[in-house]
Amino acid sequence: MASMAALFTKSHAPARSLLPKSSRCDASGSLVHLRRGPVGGMAIRCALIEPDGGKLVELIAPIGFEREERRREVAQAGDLPRIKLSQIDLEWVHVLSEGWASPLRGFMREAEFLQTLHFNCLRMDDASVVNMSLPIVLAIDDVQKMAVEGHDKVVLVDANSKPVATLTDIEIYKHNKEERIARTWGTTVAGLPYVEQAITNAGNWLVGGDLDVIEPIKYNDGLDHYRLSPAELREEFERRNADAVFAFQLRNPVHNGHALLMTDTRRHLLEMGYKNPILLLHPLGGYTKADDVPLSWRMKQHEKVLEEGVLDPETTVVAIFPSPMLYAGPTEVQWHAKARINAGANFYIVGRDPAGMSHPTEKRDLYDADHGKKVLRMAPGLERLNILPFKVAAYDKTQGKMAFFDPSRPQDFQFISGTKMRNLAKNREDPPDGFMCPGGWKVLVDYYDSLALQEGAKMREPVPA
Amino acid sequence: MASMAALFTKSHAPARSLLPKSSRCDASGSLVHLRRGPVGGMAIRCALIEPDGGKLVELIAPIGFEREERRREVAQAGDLPRIKLSQIDLEWVHVLSEGWASPLRGFMREAEFLQTLHFNCLRMDDASVVNMSLPIVLAIDDVQKMAVEGHDKVVLVDANSKPVATLTDIEIYKHNKEERIARTWGTTVAGLPYVEQAITNAGNWLVGGDLDVIEPIKYNDGLDHYRLSPAELREEFERRNADAVFAFQLRNPVHNGHALLMTDTRRHLLEMGYKNPILLLHPLGGYTKADDVPLSWRMKQHEKVLEEGVLDPETTVVAIFPSPMLYAGPTEVQWHAKARINAGANFYIVGRDPAGMSHPTEKRDLYDADHGKKVLRMAPGLERLNILPFKVAAYDKTQGKMAFFDPSRPQDFQFISGTKMRNLAKNREDPPDGFMCPGGWKVLVDYYDSLALQEGAKMREPVPA
Repeated sequence: MASMAALFTKSHAPARSLLPKSSRCDASGSLVHLRRGPVGGMAIRCALIEPDGGKLVELIAPIGFEREERRREVAQAGDLPRIKLSQIDLEWVHVLSEGWASPLRGFMREAEFLQTLHFNCLRMDDASVVNMSLPIVLAIDDVQKMAVEGHDKVVLVDANSKPVATLTDIEIYKHNKEERIARTWGTTVAGLPYVEQAITNAGNWLVGGDLDVIEPIKYNDGLDHYRLSPAELREEFERRNADAVFAFQLRNPVHNGHALLMTDTRRHLLEMGYKNPILLLHPLGGYTKADDVPLSWRMKQHEKVLEEGVLDPETTVVAIFPSPMLYAGPTEVQWHAKARINAGANFYIVGRDPAGMSHPTEKRDLYDADHGKKVLRMAPGLERLNILPFKVAAYDKTQGKMAFFDPSRPQDFQFISGTKMRNLAKNREDPPDGFMCPGGWKVLVDYYDSLALQEGAKMREPVPA
Repeated sequence: MASMAALFTKSHAPARSLLPKSSRCDASGSLVHLRRGPVGGMAIRCALIEPDGGKLVELIAPIGFEREERRREVAQAGDLPRIKLSQIDLEWVHVLSEGWASPLRGFMREAEFLQTLHFNCLRMDDASVVNMSLPIVLAIDDVQKMAVEGHDKVVLVDANSKPVATLTDIEIYKHNKEERIARTWGTTVAGLPYVEQAITNAGNWLVGGDLDVIEPIKYNDGLDHYRLSPAELREEFERRNADAVFAFQLRNPVHNGHALLMTDTRRHLLEMGYKNPILLLHPLGGYTKADDVPLSWRMKQHEKVLEEGVLDPETTVVAIFPSPMLYAGPTEVQWHAKARINAGANFYIVGRDPAGMSHPTEKRDLYDADHGKKVLRMAPGLERLNILPFKVAAYDKTQGKMAFFDPSRPQDFQFISGTKMRNLAKNREDPPDGFMCPGGWKVLVDYYDSLALQEGAKMREPVPA
């Protein structure tokens, strides 16, 4: 248990209480549920952590009359300019529409954009502060700007030109890409995946405004049932009688080291006095770079992890976080944490080098591996969130399983990096016993087999003469 | 007076009260002075604005026993590693020693450095926030790091190896220059003056710690009497019975447009109910880029402006702000404002494109001209400061003097840019009457003459065979 003690050791950063009372009934907390507890007696429970800004933003027209009204209004607004959304734009519409970015009510206007770039937080009318580290912006080019100017409202349409939403009370301002990139990534080096995908060729203007979305964003990829909104997640946590929710953000397959950490975190929360801590296993579902394992395969892998009992389905909620991935390290991890507050999580597990990647041109990681954790602990607007640093797990050869690394006997441990894991799976080699549940590993092997098949098929394609 | 109304118009940014009460006696304000007022009766006055963190930091050993003790201690500490300070390092020691950066007590440790880069502010132990937008850091190279490691304390020495200060309880951490530059300047383009001067060739490590300075930093350039510390400035404002202090940061000669703005600001403050607003005319005195007018010439020019009555010496304090100049636009203007709070200013006049410059490689300004003002109004930790946007003045040909630009009759105005002003002075041409006081203009002409003489002398130097 020494390892768990270390897991919860506080840094020198400004203190955050880890006592259960801080996230349960305190002077300002209100008792909102009076239900039968698990043992049949009357149990008193507090509300989940409040969303940023006090109220979860929801921008989708309620089903029924209001939605039909909004649909009709947009259909008839033939004179309104239309902006076609890219896939990543649409993902941000999704994020905004469900309130992951609460209290943000649409694509950022300049005041929000500048506060995000300079301060990683937004000041509210009541002088309180909410965290907001990533610009959520919509770029338009010169031609679109000319079309939009003079209008108060525009219609946002998807790749098939189907109206998705309107943006009202719009504001157009300059898209200084160099400054946006430098202040978000802390570098302007070529080869940043999100930058190349979504910024380099984007327009020179940004348009902000209030978003009204016609209906929930769906992808029809067989995974929509995993895409729970913050409101739906909160409902689920209430239904399960959660008195603590701890979130685990990931974009990789789950190995037993992850599982050990999550299980141990729950045990620790129980020791602290929580009665029913629930894990939110929350893979990122939006844009990822080409060499990450695709969402559909990751979801299959996560399913196996629960099926095979590595994680307990009773105390685990698996859902998809719809945000795109920026690989912006310490800046992005704040977004990952902040969005989970809005989904009801009051504990957040932060790993080594969160949202990091290799430097595109130098032989080093882009970010210092500890900066994400440090920045997260000091970030304005995240004071209410309990940050749990990720303890390093490795394969313990003496036990034949994943265990927390014990620096007193380093020779007993084998580190299996993401790259090594992928290479093993690609080559159909087995990892050490106990590294990952067999069903989960098989999914990975199948994925790389499917890639090899595709590549083989490509190689067999006739070459143009 | 329409122009003054515009000058004080509030933006959509979070509101700051411009009412005198907010900076005078309010619920939390304490009555600290009970003096004879200017008309002989008893006047009640409030304290000047509180320094950041509640108390002005002063890191210089008090004259007498304590200073001798510190000097002796350092002289005897032959085994302590020594770090030689560059001129810019020394300027930062000066800045820190007098509390311009209060509550900072020395060169930043990593937690402060990261908060500065990511949030432009520092969180205090009591959860309050102070603004801090520029990293104040000390770089060391690999060899120095090896010498320093294992020690708790180092001695900082000047160019002549004379001990200046000690740094205690030190922390060494990585100097990621690319990230520092990107997050401070919003670009990593080559040709940023401060970067080339102080960062590019600096060491790969930063050392933070608590600073103890032996004696006040002096330059012996005939201008030290202008280098008033924040404590001395506060004393001077008290002595003058100031009930409002408005600061004007500059690194250029003062023309009559500036003077008009400052005079008009005072008139407006009087109209608001202040009895004795004092102007702090506060030229920056540290490192500036090569084509800026040097400090000594600027001070001569400012002297003439007061001698010739363009500004009223009774209500103006001229002093030198010892900070180096970073040309970091919206990030730096926060530092310029924050440091003046520590010196007792509760109003800050912000110009067009503050701390800006031309983009080193593109034909445009590096920063959006309005961003400095906008960012300043939203900056965390500056809520107590009243930000006064700078109204554009130009030469009004119908009146034969500088006046606030009237957009209803643009044809009547002539804009005289800094470049144009410098070119006129270089060519010994006269600017339009009323652009600058004659004595002040002569100083500028003399400066460019002295440059021409130097260049002539260089050209006459024998060329090595």
